[in-house]
Amino acid sequence: MNKTVSGFSKLSKSEKINWIVDTYLPHNTSAKEVLMQYWNTDVKLQQLHDEFIENTITNYYLPFGVAPNFLINGKTYTIPMAIEESSVVAAASKAAKFWLDRGGFKTEVLSTTKIGQVHFKFNGSFETLSGYFNHIKPKLFEDTNAITTNMEKRGGGILDIELRDKTAEIDGYYQLHVSFETLDAMGANFINSCLEQFAKTFKSHASDYEGFSEEERDIDLIMSILSNYVPECIVRAEVSCAIEDLKESEQISGEDFATKFVQAVNIAEIEPYRAVTHNKGIMNGIDAVVLATGNDFRAIEAGVHAYAARNGRYSSLSHAKIENGVFRFWMDIPLALGTVGGLTGLHPLVKLALEILDNPSAKELMQITAVAGLAQNFAALRSLTTTGIQQGHMKMHLMNILNQFNANNEEKQALTEHFKTTTVTHTAVVEALSALRR
Amino acid sequence: MNKTVSGFSKLSKSEKINWIVDTYLPHNTSAKEVLMQYWNTDVKLQQLHDEFIENTITNYYLPFGVAPNFLINGKTYTIPMAIEESSVVAAASKAAKFWLDRGGFKTEVLSTTKIGQVHFKFNGSFETLSGYFNHIKPKLFEDTNAITTNMEKRGGGILDIELRDKTAEIDGYYQLHVSFETLDAMGANFINSCLEQFAKTFKSHASDYEGFSEEERDIDLIMSILSNYVPECIVRAEVSCAIEDLKESEQISGEDFATKFVQAVNIAEIEPYRAVTHNKGIMNGIDAVVLATGNDFRAIEAGVHAYAARNGRYSSLSHAKIENGVFRFWMDIPLALGTVGGLTGLHPLVKLALEILDNPSAKELMQITAVAGLAQNFAALRSLTTTGIQQGHMKMHLMNILNQFNANNEEKQALTEHFKTTTVTHTAVVEALSALRR
Repeated sequence: MNKTVSGFSKLSKSEKINWIVDTYLPHNTSAKEVLMQYWNTDVKLQQLHDEFIENTITNYYLPFGVAPNFLINGKTYTIPMAIEESSVVAAASKAAKFWLDRGGFKTEVLSTTKIGQVHFKFNGSFETLSGYFNHIKPKLFEDTNAITTNMEKRGGGILDIELRDKTAEIDGYYQLHVSFETLDAMGANFINSCLEQFAKTFKSHASDYEGFSEEERDIDLIMSILSNYVPECIVRAEVSCAIEDLKESEQISGEDFATKFVQAVNIAEIEPYRAVTHNKGIMNGIDAVVLATGNDFRAIEAGVHAYAARNGRYSSLSHAKIENGVFRFWMDIPLALGTVGGLTGLHPLVKLALEILDNPSAKELMQITAVAGLAQNFAALRSLTTTGIQQGHMKMHLMNILNQFNANNEEKQALTEHFKTTTVTHTAVVEALSALRR
Repeated sequence: MNKTVSGFSKLSKSEKINWIVDTYLPHNTSAKEVLMQYWNTDVKLQQLHDEFIENTITNYYLPFGVAPNFLINGKTYTIPMAIEESSVVAAASKAAKFWLDRGGFKTEVLSTTKIGQVHFKFNGSFETLSGYFNHIKPKLFEDTNAITTNMEKRGGGILDIELRDKTAEIDGYYQLHVSFETLDAMGANFINSCLEQFAKTFKSHASDYEGFSEEERDIDLIMSILSNYVPECIVRAEVSCAIEDLKESEQISGEDFATKFVQAVNIAEIEPYRAVTHNKGIMNGIDAVVLATGNDFRAIEAGVHAYAARNGRYSSLSHAKIENGVFRFWMDIPLALGTVGGLTGLHPLVKLALEILDNPSAKELMQITAVAGLAQNFAALRSLTTTGIQQGHMKMHLMNILNQFNANNEEKQALTEHFKTTTVTHTAVVEALSALRR
């Protein structure tokens, strides 16, 4: 059977679903129902969500939860998080509560510069090209006026345009390396529009620039695009307290806890196998806020992990130390976030999430998001270095399996008790449930 | 006002919402309605989704779309994608169609090994420790029998346990570095359960091991945890065709297109600012499939970007070349995915997504997902090196702004026409819409 299709994007949503079901799921009589049960009953609202992307056939539910009790620079937040992974919201809430009683989180935005580049080839020397670049630079600013006026009114815009010689690595390869301040906008459209205009201006005026030979006039544009690598768009988040204040129970002293915690962080600093998972935990917190606030988690992920590898070896984003009896845990992390544009004004739940956060500026959102990441990391390291993470995970794992088999509340209670002393595996749970039901 | 709370997790969903609204949104009369309009009308289904995580108050909608016409190793797929970013599904579909006529995608799983580590400190020499390790190694396998039996029956399990000396970097630091084959499971619970058992066995038997001095007996466990760095869990995806077959229109020859394309890839290989965005584009495709199939995108992201930095400089995941008149574009990428366990058996839409993909094994899902990434990258580079990406993006941007202002179909048509020749900025669109409405 031919499972290809022409003109699919032009079909209506129902026609699309019919084609998929007829072609791939001919024997699944409930497939359409499953897809349609996720449609919103409000037709207009559903249409809004359908139009966010192409070929939408339904809504994918990510659980939307909240983690309360975050004290950040003296202000209290409840942080909305959209994430499918269990334990993340619970861990964030627990860490928030822990630090609420110990002075809370301190944050600071260190920089907010974003980068874009025009990549091109030029058949001549850097010196000659520099002459042309200096000649055309005012024109580059001038020709982007229509795009930049409003951003400039608000205090942002193009910060600088630099010509970079990359010929040591690729023959004839140069860049316009441009820095931007985009304020509360993530700024992708703004930056890309500016860059494409630069490219146009840069190429077109080369053809009658007198300092160029005939050969040099033909600048070969390759591409113009923003960078998601933003090592100059950094926020710092930290917590600290006296070592003895770390003590929560009789099981472990503040000093022992701090020592173990710092050791665990040190390991993530020198061992990439550990650093990747360590940072993954940070991103559990960060992505959940990024998603809930309508930002692009792929952009954030790429920028963060590349930053974690900036010194040549992939390493921990967070750091910890004990000094003069004080425990300190902190991280600097690149977060190019926006609170205007994109989904922020379109997705009703994103709007509400931002409102719960008191409609933050992009800088404020950077700080809140970084805190969610640091809190997550704190909670993970705390579990790992004390009880191990499986204790908590296995409880959720058990509950998931029980749900899968439609266990009722009585069954859930009985088996939760049973598995307090037995290792949770899928088979063991299924067997125990069957035994109980017999 | 005190915006903190105790016992929040124990409140009912409605009580949680009441507290949030009373505390943070006292003047927003529609907040509750916004949250509740996203609840599913099927109470049981909603409860299922609520229980995936903690403190759930509603569902966050990610658009769930499909990209048809993917020919992979001779089999045709329609790939489900959950993503909020416009253009991604359209680009995937376009790339799929392009390669459908040119032999399709070829893929191969190169390896499937996953890693976990027990990190500990030992107050003695590597030689002495090695003696103990060899002595206890069979016991490590034996004590995890209850966990591994079923995995072994299916052909997976613990592949090897290695003792690693890391004292050159941290005094007294050693690891049990363990490799696993987890087949169709992502395997996080399996691996972590094994590791925690190793740690227990390893520590407890040290106390009466005769080869240890008193001091050496006290092994200091730091943590036991799987790694999301999976450079031995790799899938390769590629496309190739004769250069002249790349030609689609009169605007650019196959040869010129191939040359530009390869140049763009070469730039991403040597310039981290470009590589990060280049790979971000790949992840647009990959994460959309990862989400739709119930896998953990933070784990995948962390593993992929660390892999992109493995040679000391962050670099492109994909590569391209022209050889003997043939254009070839490919990538090797680490993807530790699962098709059993986790959300795969719980989330009705994930189950359906997997069914649309013909219920793939984890290996098959690795291949399909890698193809979605490569297709995305192909489409992005194609736009970037020819028309630029803003042409497509701006159309969507325009439509988003118009939706934000509830433009009707007539207004949409008029302004789409208008902005064919004018730069789209938020202000320009708002002004044009106002003018039209006057």
